[in-house]
Amino acid sequence: MMSEQRPFGELIPFSEAVNKILTSVDEIKRKETIHLTKAIGRVLSENVESDLYVPPFERGAMDGFAVKAEDTYGAGKFDPVELQSIGIIHAGDEPSIKIEEGECAQIATGAPMPDGADAVVKVEVTEKADDTISIYKPVHPGENVSPKGEDIKEGEIVLKKDQVLSPAQIGALAAMGMEEVKVYEKPKVGIIPTGDEVVPLDEELKPGQIYDVNSYTLTSMVESNGSKAFRGTVVQDSLEGLKEEIKKQSKDMDMVLFSGGSSVCDKDMLIDALSSLGKVVFHGVKLKPGKPTLFGIVDGTMVFGMPGYPTSCLNTAQHLILPALRKMASLPPPCERKTRAHLDKRITSSLGRKQYMTVELEGDKAYPVYKQSGAITSMAQADGYFKIPENVELVEKGEEVEVVLF
Amino acid sequence: MMSEQRPFGELIPFSEAVNKILTSVDEIKRKETIHLTKAIGRVLSENVESDLYVPPFERGAMDGFAVKAEDTYGAGKFDPVELQSIGIIHAGDEPSIKIEEGECAQIATGAPMPDGADAVVKVEVTEKADDTISIYKPVHPGENVSPKGEDIKEGEIVLKKDQVLSPAQIGALAAMGMEEVKVYEKPKVGIIPTGDEVVPLDEELKPGQIYDVNSYTLTSMVESNGSKAFRGTVVQDSLEGLKEEIKKQSKDMDMVLFSGGSSVCDKDMLIDALSSLGKVVFHGVKLKPGKPTLFGIVDGTMVFGMPGYPTSCLNTAQHLILPALRKMASLPPPCERKTRAHLDKRITSSLGRKQYMTVELEGDKAYPVYKQSGAITSMAQADGYFKIPENVELVEKGEEVEVVLF
Repeated sequence: MMSEQRPFGELIPFSEAVNKILTSVDEIKRKETIHLTKAIGRVLSENVESDLYVPPFERGAMDGFAVKAEDTYGAGKFDPVELQSIGIIHAGDEPSIKIEEGECAQIATGAPMPDGADAVVKVEVTEKADDTISIYKPVHPGENVSPKGEDIKEGEIVLKKDQVLSPAQIGALAAMGMEEVKVYEKPKVGIIPTGDEVVPLDEELKPGQIYDVNSYTLTSMVESNGSKAFRGTVVQDSLEGLKEEIKKQSKDMDMVLFSGGSSVCDKDMLIDALSSLGKVVFHGVKLKPGKPTLFGIVDGTMVFGMPGYPTSCLNTAQHLILPALRKMASLPPPCERKTRAHLDKRITSSLGRKQYMTVELEGDKAYPVYKQSGAITSMAQADGYFKIPENVELVEKGEEVEVVLF
Repeated sequence: MMSEQRPFGELIPFSEAVNKILTSVDEIKRKETIHLTKAIGRVLSENVESDLYVPPFERGAMDGFAVKAEDTYGAGKFDPVELQSIGIIHAGDEPSIKIEEGECAQIATGAPMPDGADAVVKVEVTEKADDTISIYKPVHPGENVSPKGEDIKEGEIVLKKDQVLSPAQIGALAAMGMEEVKVYEKPKVGIIPTGDEVVPLDEELKPGQIYDVNSYTLTSMVESNGSKAFRGTVVQDSLEGLKEEIKKQSKDMDMVLFSGGSSVCDKDMLIDALSSLGKVVFHGVKLKPGKPTLFGIVDGTMVFGMPGYPTSCLNTAQHLILPALRKMASLPPPCERKTRAHLDKRITSSLGRKQYMTVELEGDKAYPVYKQSGAITSMAQADGYFKIPENVELVEKGEEVEVVLF
């Protein structure tokens, strides 16, 4: 039986919806230990203190000759100092040589400094004749030498909690010999397709049926924002079925997205299920596309009823759900590519609703490609979108707009 | 034995190095078929043509009543038209009802239109008394109806070759019922740590040894730019060993990064190995940090000798290697987060070398954190970097710079 058809309640402004969502969500504090090679883009769950020095020993910073600096003080372009080379130190060698007055040793970049030496003369200002090395330029103590711990000291806090790991931080962890690292767990997001007409991709369509689109767009959006998606099987529209699913999901997940039936009647069932298990925070947002969005909380888990139309669903996901996901994951807002273009067509908007208008770009011209909220191609074939604020009803042809690229 | 120490050849300008690399690299054209749930960020290797209509049938676009539009023409606010409801059509139903003159059927958004009906009157402008439905507003033919194929037509090219897949395109593929998609293979990048002093993270450091940093930073950089990293074990410095490794790698990989010993002597060995197997394109770039970068080609595979110092290696990777990787992967340049800040310290640069200066940000102030190219913390503890062009020797305190955030 079709449930009674009810219109939406009062729509809330877009910014209020964002606020209500963000104040309901906390950063995930659960931790896990992962291998360094899997750590890119993850977020440190604790300060990282080094238990070694980097470099772990004093080393040569140039290819050349390790010397006592004072032995070189008289050296000049036409008046070299001559030192006796007593050996060669390669990178990786265990240091065994000791330099006495008048001596030096050939040394490679990265090789440990020999005892007794306090500087390196670079090879370009030397001349070699058997074991006699002519030095044409003096060095001061410490010159061309990297002291032990120059980069990192034992006991130093090298990286701070909540740091997002990019290649440089991965490098710092490797330098400290850390094969594993403690990070926050990714937020767990249940994605539940609903709707009696929706079938999974591996089935043949029967008359009246369509393929499940939203659970795939939502999964890819969730996974590319530092979160883990758990895509469920299609739940058929029934109050009991929905309640069972909400109970199960709210126990296991940090967020649940019901991605199905957009119609008022489906939503009513989800509202009824939510009200009986938890709290409905809002239903209906002044957002286009994306009006019929439902948000509730059950046992501390955020539950969303997403619009059923693919474009509405994805637009809502990007502008309402994504900020919450990234907050949960302790990630900064996503990087946006932007460009400016001139609108090639006059556009009327819905006064009072924040609108995201998709466009195709050609040179510095932007052509609206919005069809209707049912059409996934109005996003899939667009290059980006621009925003039309709530209080704007009309954007004139030729007006310059800021396009956020997909 | 330490090989003879040779200085660099002539350094080439940074932009010339980029050009030489980019003209040597082709987009990978090998294809693979992957599951839709793994397809985010991948690049289509062929046009995608739909073999079905989306939606696959004419459907209601509103909750309401399916009618013959002409039956409603006289309807008005105070003068409703009355129609007999002969049934209910849910989403997912196989259509079986036929609407005759004077009849209508309750219909849900997304449900198939019944035969005989050509419009939907939305529920808000109707009143129901048993099976008698009062219609208070006329509709025109096609109103609130989504025609079959409104979004996608059978035989239509929906997505074009070389399209990067974001959630919207994933959605379009799902709408067409495509569980799998043909994409370009990811570029394969061999990453070979070298250097007698370098040990893997799972070993204890002996005196004179340091941990392998570069293969980890390079792996994470490669993997976060649409490519597949194959991290090898540390190759000890020997000409024969290097030649063997280059031969093996150039057969299997699209690009090889030797990430180890940066010193002139190590590089000479790599140069010798490269010259004997292929062509050396350049050695030494006017880039800071990153001068001692070596580029050659063996059997069509790009082979790089990366600087050994972690910061030099990573800086080179980000500004010389990354553009090549993304070209091979058919990806656009990466998205950069930028901000403007005032330099809090006067900086002298190396005239003639393009310099990337790392900074920490505090409000709108930028503090240089560059230590020396050996220090990975000079990048790991920085918030971003700004560029100093080749022809600039000095940046004054207080000057505004554009900082690219990490």
